[in-house]
Amino acid sequence: MNFASDNTTGVAPEIMDAILSANSGQAMPYGADAISQRLTARFAEIFEHEVAVFPVATGTAANSLGLASLTPAWGAIYCHEDAHIATDECGAPEFFSAGAKLIALPGAHGKLEPKTVEEKLEGKGVVHNVQPAAISISQESEAGTLYRPEEVAALGATARRHAIALHMDGARFANAVAGLGCKPADITWRAGVDVLAFGATKNGALAAEAVIFFDKIKAGELGFRRKRAGHLFSKMRFIAAQLEAYLTDDLWLRNARHANAMAARLAAGLSALPNIRLLHPVEGNELFVELPEAAIAGLRSAGFTFYSWGMQPVVRLVAAFDTKIENVDAFIATAARYLDRRN
Amino acid sequence: MNFASDNTTGVAPEIMDAILSANSGQAMPYGADAISQRLTARFAEIFEHEVAVFPVATGTAANSLGLASLTPAWGAIYCHEDAHIATDECGAPEFFSAGAKLIALPGAHGKLEPKTVEEKLEGKGVVHNVQPAAISISQESEAGTLYRPEEVAALGATARRHAIALHMDGARFANAVAGLGCKPADITWRAGVDVLAFGATKNGALAAEAVIFFDKIKAGELGFRRKRAGHLFSKMRFIAAQLEAYLTDDLWLRNARHANAMAARLAAGLSALPNIRLLHPVEGNELFVELPEAAIAGLRSAGFTFYSWGMQPVVRLVAAFDTKIENVDAFIATAARYLDRRN
Amino acid sequence: MNFASDNTTGVAPEIMDAILSANSGQAMPYGADAISQRLTARFAEIFEHEVAVFPVATGTAANSLGLASLTPAWGAIYCHEDAHIATDECGAPEFFSAGAKLIALPGAHGKLEPKTVEEKLEGKGVVHNVQPAAISISQESEAGTLYRPEEVAALGATARRHAIALHMDGARFANAVAGLGCKPADITWRAGVDVLAFGATKNGALAAEAVIFFDKIKAGELGFRRKRAGHLFSKMRFIAAQLEAYLTDDLWLRNARHANAMAARLAAGLSALPNIRLLHPVEGNELFVELPEAAIAGLRSAGFTFYSWGMQPVVRLVAAFDTKIENVDAFIATAARYLDRRN
Amino acid sequence: MNFASDNTTGVAPEIMDAILSANSGQAMPYGADAISQRLTARFAEIFEHEVAVFPVATGTAANSLGLASLTPAWGAIYCHEDAHIATDECGAPEFFSAGAKLIALPGAHGKLEPKTVEEKLEGKGVVHNVQPAAISISQESEAGTLYRPEEVAALGATARRHAIALHMDGARFANAVAGLGCKPADITWRAGVDVLAFGATKNGALAAEAVIFFDKIKAGELGFRRKRAGHLFSKMRFIAAQLEAYLTDDLWLRNARHANAMAARLAAGLSALPNIRLLHPVEGNELFVELPEAAIAGLRSAGFTFYSWGMQPVVRLVAAFDTKIENVDAFIATAARYLDRRN
Repeated sequence: MNFASDNTTGVAPEIMDAILSANSGQAMPYGADAISQRLTARFAEIFEHEVAVFPVATGTAANSLGLASLTPAWGAIYCHEDAHIATDECGAPEFFSAGAKLIALPGAHGKLEPKTVEEKLEGKGVVHNVQPAAISISQESEAGTLYRPEEVAALGATARRHAIALHMDGARFANAVAGLGCKPADITWRAGVDVLAFGATKNGALAAEAVIFFDKIKAGELGFRRKRAGHLFSKMRFIAAQLEAYLTDDLWLRNARHANAMAARLAAGLSALPNIRLLHPVEGNELFVELPEAAIAGLRSAGFTFYSWGMQPVVRLVAAFDTKIENVDAFIATAARYLDRRN
Repeated sequence: MNFASDNTTGVAPEIMDAILSANSGQAMPYGADAISQRLTARFAEIFEHEVAVFPVATGTAANSLGLASLTPAWGAIYCHEDAHIATDECGAPEFFSAGAKLIALPGAHGKLEPKTVEEKLEGKGVVHNVQPAAISISQESEAGTLYRPEEVAALGATARRHAIALHMDGARFANAVAGLGCKPADITWRAGVDVLAFGATKNGALAAEAVIFFDKIKAGELGFRRKRAGHLFSKMRFIAAQLEAYLTDDLWLRNARHANAMAARLAAGLSALPNIRLLHPVEGNELFVELPEAAIAGLRSAGFTFYSWGMQPVVRLVAAFDTKIENVDAFIATAARYLDRRN
Repeated sequence: MNFASDNTTGVAPEIMDAILSANSGQAMPYGADAISQRLTARFAEIFEHEVAVFPVATGTAANSLGLASLTPAWGAIYCHEDAHIATDECGAPEFFSAGAKLIALPGAHGKLEPKTVEEKLEGKGVVHNVQPAAISISQESEAGTLYRPEEVAALGATARRHAIALHMDGARFANAVAGLGCKPADITWRAGVDVLAFGATKNGALAAEAVIFFDKIKAGELGFRRKRAGHLFSKMRFIAAQLEAYLTDDLWLRNARHANAMAARLAAGLSALPNIRLLHPVEGNELFVELPEAAIAGLRSAGFTFYSWGMQPVVRLVAAFDTKIENVDAFIATAARYLDRRN
Repeated sequence: MNFASDNTTGVAPEIMDAILSANSGQAMPYGADAISQRLTARFAEIFEHEVAVFPVATGTAANSLGLASLTPAWGAIYCHEDAHIATDECGAPEFFSAGAKLIALPGAHGKLEPKTVEEKLEGKGVVHNVQPAAISISQESEAGTLYRPEEVAALGATARRHAIALHMDGARFANAVAGLGCKPADITWRAGVDVLAFGATKNGALAAEAVIFFDKIKAGELGFRRKRAGHLFSKMRFIAAQLEAYLTDDLWLRNARHANAMAARLAAGLSALPNIRLLHPVEGNELFVELPEAAIAGLRSAGFTFYSWGMQPVVRLVAAFDTKIENVDAFIATAARYLDRRN
């Protein structure tokens, strides 16, 4: 009964089948295989726009390769202070960009606002200062919230006005699209996003992500960056097959909708209990819940797994594509028992 | 009928089974799963030595992470001028090491000799010069040849004498062990190797390699380097499962022996033909064959796939774990037909 | 009548004389000259401690070379949010360290407190997080204030407790020693400082700084870093001569005392006026003064040069070794005139 | 009697005078002073072409900053195997470029030929290979020889044909112009040079070099690179003053002509002796002389200073702007004495 993270999941059956199917005979390496070759067209369809697609196998790689292509080594990347790129990647964006600086900014519920960025967008053209290069947002955010299309667009407009780029960490992009009920285009290129780290691993893939460029020209050097960072796979067909299956018959959205629904059910159930507080609106597949230490301990001893978050008695609960409804209900019931006792 | 590379192969059935088996239920991420946890002990057994093991998914990552841990940014890494790290990784070692310099040296049949390295081991302690840091050799070499244990040991002794490290690119390590009929230890730590990039992908894995340290202390920072480069997988169990299956029941050696045998058969068959020349001894699973352009063209039109090598009429033929004996024989027969015509 | 910065000054006559004297005959390059050779002993005397000394020509180089020797590429350096290294060096620390992260922290009057650092000293040993590596403080601070010896020592203790280093940006180190009336040792190695960027340029040199290590072992690789960054001068004697003259007959302290005295006089004069506010205690040679826009405009039109600071009507006034008392008094008188008018 | 290097010299009197003159009053920092402001126009005059000029203080900085602006991190820079950038800068080009690869090529008398470069210009567009980015030549070369204008132009044409850049290490550029009796333009932009590291230090400056771009657009980011590397001087006027004096009344050429003449006199005198061999044509201010060990020892004991070169009994002799004719004659006479004895 694991609510620790969506990365504790295994591989969705449809994706595992695709891996098995890809394993017939030989194929030319490094993306010259048939599956890889048809992947770009599929993404273009999904996004209703020409794209350049670079499959990789980790979110850190997808984020850092994309960011590095948007900034000089002396660039500044504006992001939320809780952004995964700022806190959980051991300095990967700095490594891939040869030293760019992440400017960590506050923002309610994990979301960045144009105003906050604007205030720090300084020093352009001054050699003493790092140079504004990109804004990076996480969609779904690290607080489990979602940027509305118009919120993304407002940041896109800020980026355009300052001639910098807009990057999106989409490790949970499917949960965002599912949660917003929008088109993928609405929260990407139509809203000014230049580069998207499109995640699949957390939502059912074995290990598959993609760097998506909406302007193919800007993608020019990504192939070199990817190879040089050791992220070009010889047996690329097995990464491509995962992504293809993920995009087939809306698997990516179906999986995400299930995860979101489980999170919503968990949120509804817990909200009804006393002495419990949701820190952020639950819009995707993550909850941040403040509850008494005794309840936390009780849930753990009852066999539930999850991470504590920060220094308060707060836990993060993540629902995934394979979260079982009975586990959700069991969690709520167990929580209820411990919260009652406390009274 | 693909002789282009062993990376055009798919996944060995035993390894695919292991991936499927690993896909039951949830598991803690980033190597905290059960399979990953028992992998180090398995490698220690194979190598008869304590090891630190860092699974990754590409050979470029394995090589570069290992090398970066052996050199300062101003270090010199001595390697063969045809070394994969020098010619085929788009500068990855330079990237991971923040700018170390590869000193490309000549050597017959793809192998480096102590003398050649010694002559260039200069400038130690002089601030104007990059500092000798490591020797790197490929076992099996890029010419398809193998270093005998005593040849590795001689380079190990050179490294020790100059207080530098010895690194081994083992993308085809299994083919080397199989070809030499030695113990893994004989050509690694016993011969002075500090770090091994242990390959599995070319020999049956989907995407699995490991950086192996024979001195755990030197491995201290590899975990940070791996994460920071985006090579730490959340669903690590699926990489670990591949490696575990690879090491089970000698699969790695069985696969390699088959590949080597197919290469030997090909070599024997071709050697008997007129107007053909093997450029290097065939000791592993690769052949470099000089033959008339007409024969090359004829083989291609007959459906055989392989790479031309350099500017002469030379082709590289690679046998793999799944190479079929009938394809080998067909290749020889076809070659024979074209070589006859030429006369 | 320039109060813009102490870097608008020329060269102190004693230092220019030393440059001229050094220009007799030939000398071996890169620090093998006689002046360079005796410099370390002189610094050791001044600091009452063994030191390793690396002369360079800019403060950015001195800071970045020192910091890079204290952190891995995945390290975190804790500094004040207004620190020169964080705001005014175009990402130089990131460049020299191959991507380390500066953690910018708040602190009253430009000074960092142990508590603030402690709260952020997290993630040690966790591969997802950058690793705590060093605290960096500016002495004199960017707000013109000074850390008392015990304040430095408290930060030194924090650093020791977490096994990280303490770095000091001493671009205005002389002003700090002069202002505190302490020994150089009291605010450096005795208080736990590992590496000092010792500045001379702002206080009378043409272009001369030095990276000072109080633990010679840690200095081991600085020579390579310096050369590799292009900061090893062939005609080193001319840098060394500046530093030698600077340290002779207390020139460094005499110059600094004058600058501090001029700043104090300016502070006293301005404090007595209405509608004016000093933002920080004036302890060195810098003042940050809030005053009406009209007064700012008036002072400028009267021929005074200085920088506006931030978005409020605040100006920074810097006194230097060559600041003339009559200019200080003229500034006060002019300010008085404009402040009166405003009423 | 120092023939070790032109960097053992002091400062030419005209340049020292300029430094003294620059030391009057205050000046805005970082190149906003009057001398710096007029420097670009002066260089444009000298080169008969629009230029962007970035003064720095070391040759390593000038070379590396220029090169870094011409190559991506995954680029290849083709240079002579004895090039200073390849052998004597501790990996500085790799550092500044974030890991570009120097391809060291052979060439008679220290000079690179188009054919040699062409043969290695491979892999363009292939992600596995570093990407051809620039050719770098030293003028005067490391063997003391000079590229004729048409030889530079041939390399320039090669560069253009492959859409890569041509960089010139001009640490001894004045000696080259003086030796060839050509216009500065003839061996730079007219011959296809994109970026020149213009040296002054070895020929009379205290510490002054300049990165010269002949296409201002390509210079766009150099200002950031320079600051970020710690090579932007606050008291820039003192660097600019050196360069201005150097370019005034042909001082740079007068100094170089003297050095070249002294080298020629030394070459003529030594050539006439038995058992002595000049390894390369003497076209600038350097000689490489093979002579018996006994003669080398004898010259050293007679008080002459110079470097041994390589593993043969070869010495390098460098004449400089301040080399005295009597020392040249004394060297020849002493050599004659020892060479006679040997017979």
